[in-house]
Amino acid sequence: MSSPSIILLLVWSLWSFSCTVAADPLPSWNEGPTKAAILEFVAAVTDKNSEDYVKPADRIATFDNDGTLWVEYPMYTQVLFAFDRVKELAPQHPEWKTKQPFKAALEGDMKTVGASGMQGLMEIVVATHAGMTAAEFEKTVSAWLATHKQPRFKRLYTECVYQPQLELLAYLRVNKFKTFICSGGGIAFMRPVTYRIYGIPPEQVIGSSVAAEFQMRDGKPVLVRMPKIGFINDKGGKPVGIYEHIGRRPILAFGNSDSDMQMIEYTTAGKGRRLGLFVHHTDAEREYAYDRKSHVGMLDKALDQADTNGWIIVDMKNDWKKVFPPEK
Amino acid sequence: MSSPSIILLLVWSLWSFSCTVAADPLPSWNEGPTKAAILEFVAAVTDKNSEDYVKPADRIATFDNDGTLWVEYPMYTQVLFAFDRVKELAPQHPEWKTKQPFKAALEGDMKTVGASGMQGLMEIVVATHAGMTAAEFEKTVSAWLATHKQPRFKRLYTECVYQPQLELLAYLRVNKFKTFICSGGGIAFMRPVTYRIYGIPPEQVIGSSVAAEFQMRDGKPVLVRMPKIGFINDKGGKPVGIYEHIGRRPILAFGNSDSDMQMIEYTTAGKGRRLGLFVHHTDAEREYAYDRKSHVGMLDKALDQADTNGWIIVDMKNDWKKVFPPEK
Repeated sequence: MSSPSIILLLVWSLWSFSCTVAADPLPSWNEGPTKAAILEFVAAVTDKNSEDYVKPADRIATFDNDGTLWVEYPMYTQVLFAFDRVKELAPQHPEWKTKQPFKAALEGDMKTVGASGMQGLMEIVVATHAGMTAAEFEKTVSAWLATHKQPRFKRLYTECVYQPQLELLAYLRVNKFKTFICSGGGIAFMRPVTYRIYGIPPEQVIGSSVAAEFQMRDGKPVLVRMPKIGFINDKGGKPVGIYEHIGRRPILAFGNSDSDMQMIEYTTAGKGRRLGLFVHHTDAEREYAYDRKSHVGMLDKALDQADTNGWIIVDMKNDWKKVFPPEK
Repeated sequence: MSSPSIILLLVWSLWSFSCTVAADPLPSWNEGPTKAAILEFVAAVTDKNSEDYVKPADRIATFDNDGTLWVEYPMYTQVLFAFDRVKELAPQHPEWKTKQPFKAALEGDMKTVGASGMQGLMEIVVATHAGMTAAEFEKTVSAWLATHKQPRFKRLYTECVYQPQLELLAYLRVNKFKTFICSGGGIAFMRPVTYRIYGIPPEQVIGSSVAAEFQMRDGKPVLVRMPKIGFINDKGGKPVGIYEHIGRRPILAFGNSDSDMQMIEYTTAGKGRRLGLFVHHTDAEREYAYDRKSHVGMLDKALDQADTNGWIIVDMKNDWKKVFPPEK
């Protein structure tokens, strides 16, 4: 090889090396202050020479699920699953034809179900998510999620996940963060799919639950889901769920509604560098636009308090280059 | 280098390589059927060509703490901590001088406290482990564990851990197992030290808990430990705790008493290769000898059922070459 060739090769090597180093870890995020704040935060907490350095074991990040990692509009996926379960179980419950909120659920009358409040919703959850073993419930959920599609996007609910968030989760993990889900949704409803769709294993999922009981059936040990709420991992329940499952305070938390406010308050009130973010659904064209007056994922108080608290409001329309992953 | 030298070097390389491969990962375990069973199990589930192969994500191992990883005899460390707390808090509770089980606790009268049963013990736990923030409790526990010594061994309780188990935990992790603690003890009592003493991070600790509540105090979010039992992670509670925290069944579980039986039944009843083990405290000389009639860590039914179920009874006296790590 002649000398000029060697020099050319050297230049090319250096160039391709610097390209590798500089490859954008968040290609579906538009350039701007939001993306810059995320990159700067991760750089600071992972730089051993920075006063903001956080050792890998303490790099805990928690993400809400509905509306933060996957679509929640016009109705939470799990509520649709529960309605389908009501229909499926109705033949064994003739009384549901006249008993609210089951009557409304059977008629697909969301308004009346909504009007029955938390009490009504809990009755539906208990009737449809309990009274079977953990293994049976997992099978039921997996089968439903494998076949049901979001009506507007005509893709499986498990495919209606946000591409920019998948990139962020991966980017955090590459930087030795441990990524958790902390959702108001049912822990057992999410766990069958979170590893496949987000790379988050079941033991890193925190959510609401029904109480479980250990029983022996035909000489075999089983876990039975009891008709009783175990824990509501919502609002002030989120920091409690984090305390119980993780046992330390996250340094980054990401939500999208007022239900995530306490999680983000708790996260950002810790010592040292912290990052709190909310997805603001501003994109009626590519996804949905909703906030202060929405019946799902209401974002109101957190919008007002974001500036004062240094929380980042991620504007879906402007901050995200893409919303969903490419179709397979 | 001459040809013979090259050959010698080659031979030496091969020899030192095979030595590296063959280095004993469990040097404090005596050779014998117990050690062989552990090594064979790990080899089988990690060998891609074995029909017993388990993919890394499913290599979940759960360990009881008291009597399995650290000394529990003659009294659980946490109970001693609670008694000290009763003494410390007594000036604020003059009524304890005459009120059981506090009176007995103040007098160090374990028998009367024991006679007050689960109800009495829970009263003591609630009075001594609640009514403060999570951060305050962590500080209190850390300070106590940093200064209190096991009376017979004259070492900190956190140093009265079993060397063979430290080796086993490390060996499992090298083989891509995720190691968890699943203890009847308090989750918040263990978490401040488990990473330092066992390499197990707080999010991989499962235990009993008092209920926590999210509150704002002086504009700051805090988690307050409420005077109410949250969860009892004992006996049938252990598989429930595993379901809630991990969301999948372990393939290996290690306990030492009948309180661990349900965890080990649940683990070994799963499909595919499983391993269930119990430490049998048979070593009055180096540690303690107790089983069927003990007031702590009673091992009775599990001893009877071990053979039928294929559970391994680890005989401390004969299976462990060393009990404790060398003094620092």
